[in-house]
Amino acid sequence: MKYNFGAGPCILPQEVFKQASEAVLNFNGTGLSILEISHRAPEFEAVMDESVHLVKELLNVPSGYSVLFLQGGASLQFSMVPANLLAEGQTAAYLDTGAWASKAMKEAKLFGNVQVVASSKESNYTYIPKDYEIPADAAYFHCTSNNTIFGTELFSFPKTPVPMVSDMSSDIFSREINVEDFGLIYAGAQKNLGPAGVVLVLVKDELLGKSGRKLPSMLDYKIHADNKSLYNTPPVFSIYTAMLNLRWLKAKGGVGQMEKENTAKAAALYEEIDRNPIFKGTCQPEDRSRMNVCFVTENPEHEKPFLKLAEERGMIGIKGHRSVGGFRASIYNALPITSVYSLVEVMQEFAQKNA
Amino acid sequence: MKYNFGAGPCILPQEVFKQASEAVLNFNGTGLSILEISHRAPEFEAVMDESVHLVKELLNVPSGYSVLFLQGGASLQFSMVPANLLAEGQTAAYLDTGAWASKAMKEAKLFGNVQVVASSKESNYTYIPKDYEIPADAAYFHCTSNNTIFGTELFSFPKTPVPMVSDMSSDIFSREINVEDFGLIYAGAQKNLGPAGVVLVLVKDELLGKSGRKLPSMLDYKIHADNKSLYNTPPVFSIYTAMLNLRWLKAKGGVGQMEKENTAKAAALYEEIDRNPIFKGTCQPEDRSRMNVCFVTENPEHEKPFLKLAEERGMIGIKGHRSVGGFRASIYNALPITSVYSLVEVMQEFAQKNA
Ligand SMILES: Cc1ncc(COP(=O)(O)O)c(C=O)c1O
Ligand SMILES: Cc1ncc(COP(=O)(O)O)c(C=O)c1O
Ligand SMILES: [Mg+2]
Ligand SMILES: [Mg+2]
Ligand SMILES: [Mg+2]
Ligand SMILES: [Mg+2]
Repeated sequence: MKYNFGAGPCILPQEVFKQASEAVLNFNGTGLSILEISHRAPEFEAVMDESVHLVKELLNVPSGYSVLFLQGGASLQFSMVPANLLAEGQTAAYLDTGAWASKAMKEAKLFGNVQVVASSKESNYTYIPKDYEIPADAAYFHCTSNNTIFGTELFSFPKTPVPMVSDMSSDIFSREINVEDFGLIYAGAQKNLGPAGVVLVLVKDELLGKSGRKLPSMLDYKIHADNKSLYNTPPVFSIYTAMLNLRWLKAKGGVGQMEKENTAKAAALYEEIDRNPIFKGTCQPEDRSRMNVCFVTENPEHEKPFLKLAEERGMIGIKGHRSVGGFRASIYNALPITSVYSLVEVMQEFAQKNA
Repeated sequence: MKYNFGAGPCILPQEVFKQASEAVLNFNGTGLSILEISHRAPEFEAVMDESVHLVKELLNVPSGYSVLFLQGGASLQFSMVPANLLAEGQTAAYLDTGAWASKAMKEAKLFGNVQVVASSKESNYTYIPKDYEIPADAAYFHCTSNNTIFGTELFSFPKTPVPMVSDMSSDIFSREINVEDFGLIYAGAQKNLGPAGVVLVLVKDELLGKSGRKLPSMLDYKIHADNKSLYNTPPVFSIYTAMLNLRWLKAKGGVGQMEKENTAKAAALYEEIDRNPIFKGTCQPEDRSRMNVCFVTENPEHEKPFLKLAEERGMIGIKGHRSVGGFRASIYNALPITSVYSLVEVMQEFAQKNA
């Protein structure tokens, strides 16, 4: 038995793997592989339509938004957002909550001015800053809803006088959100949406074409929106598998149900971290992520032996990111609560042996 | 029985589908899906290394070139090439042989001047221009080695006084090339390399950083080269499947053997087109592509009934592109010569019925 706590690409539901595997041999009974289907074929158009529809349904997307499936990952969005929304000479406001936010800011600086409204860098990003003002003349406000590396989550989004843009790569579909509060949401697929190779973008149509820049076609949201994400050959298999995963999510009861389960999973793990004398959490409790649970050993000498024991017990991907150290258990939608219990057991076993 | 003559995404070898399908359930005996493997895991590093190695081996890539697997398709390369190689105020020389070449030119114009050295547009791209001069002060010369839509192929590349850049999306790995003649080669994977979602770039390292532009990180070849295509999360499954396909290609005897088979396949089909009174080719014979065979019916009234018959006989994807009309049979590496024979039979059957 393996328990995949990897941060991404990460676990997806077993039945999604099974269906995706079948489609590589025989897609929808066509006798053809999903890998050899033309992206202009009606069969693939149906996949794209259903994918868009499921996103809209699961996230309650109001009208006036385009749902795009693009390439280049969240990292290309770091540039596409300012390229499309930040006009020459304008300022964008960024909340600096971790490595990904910082990378997003770095790319934005190529297109205009970046104002950091608040940062928790001084504490190695162990909390989410809460008192800050967003300038009313900013082109947009950018935040990272979940900080995959540092294990913090934005439980409440600020009221903003300007369009809010959020990198939701590691928590999209894990919790309920009000899409109408956002001008643009993007998310690399490889956590709760699907396999690597596709990035989801929800963008308010009225923001398109605002920067006035002449952009390379592939960086222009308007072109992708006008072409329903088929301006060029899309990542067919990644989109198809994302669709299968969204179907699974819907059958499970949707995002609200997921949020309940994720909250319970996270609670079980943080409870053990707090209770167990060997371990401690790295983040301010009120900002603890329900997706990426970061913790360290009180005694640095316990780190290696615990990692070894956990690996012997089938735990995968729990080594913390080098900028935090210790451990990170990513407990995305597809990770069953029983896997969390198994990790808790290993923590207890370790504590007993090292009491 | 189905015969997939689609232009791309297109047929890949059946054993590649089988192996890819297995890896979605259980990758390399790890008990994990290829879709849930971290791109930083040693198991995926091995995939990336082998992929790069196979490209180098199969194409005889000399030292001094980087082999990159990126996202965004060939269409993003239309912009990345000038962004990286064309400095402000410089001119790039383009050979206009079809729709893709034109799109590449359009994107380049955002970064500098474009000089069209020759074009066959006036004849709807039925041939490859051969008499032209490449200005010695151009930043680079760009050509499309195979015109997927119009069915022409560059059988010989010009001697150029400046670095040659080639879009080889639809013929890479189908024929032998001298990589050292090129400064940069790019190819969307979804013909002879693998599934959609990844683009291959071979670039001479000495060209990197030449434009002097500060680029978005994701558009900067240097950043991708320095990070061995792992600057951000790569399209894991597409790269893995491309690796499987390159293994197959090597086992089949490599690119030279493929070229022989492709030449034989194309000859069989063009021979029938010429011989059969119902059909005629659309391109100048000496420039006829060995990958995309374009033909029309002499009598326009025969077009629909032939399409119908071919579809009844299991032929898929043979409708021509709207800018050419008629038929296009794409006969990529993985398409067996027996499928070509089957198409020839349908053409003969149709001719008999309509004699
Ligand atoms: C919050 C967040 N943003 C951005 C990224 C970068 O995504 P990609 O690798 O798809 O570019 C990640 C990757 O883990 C992430 O967790
Ligand atoms: C020669 C050529 N160049 C470029 C492209 C565009 O590739 P992509 O869809 O990967 O952007 C194609 C697609 O068929 C092509 O055949
Ligand atoms: Mg982070
Ligand atoms: Mg504790
Ligand atoms: Mg063409
Ligand atoms: Mg004829």
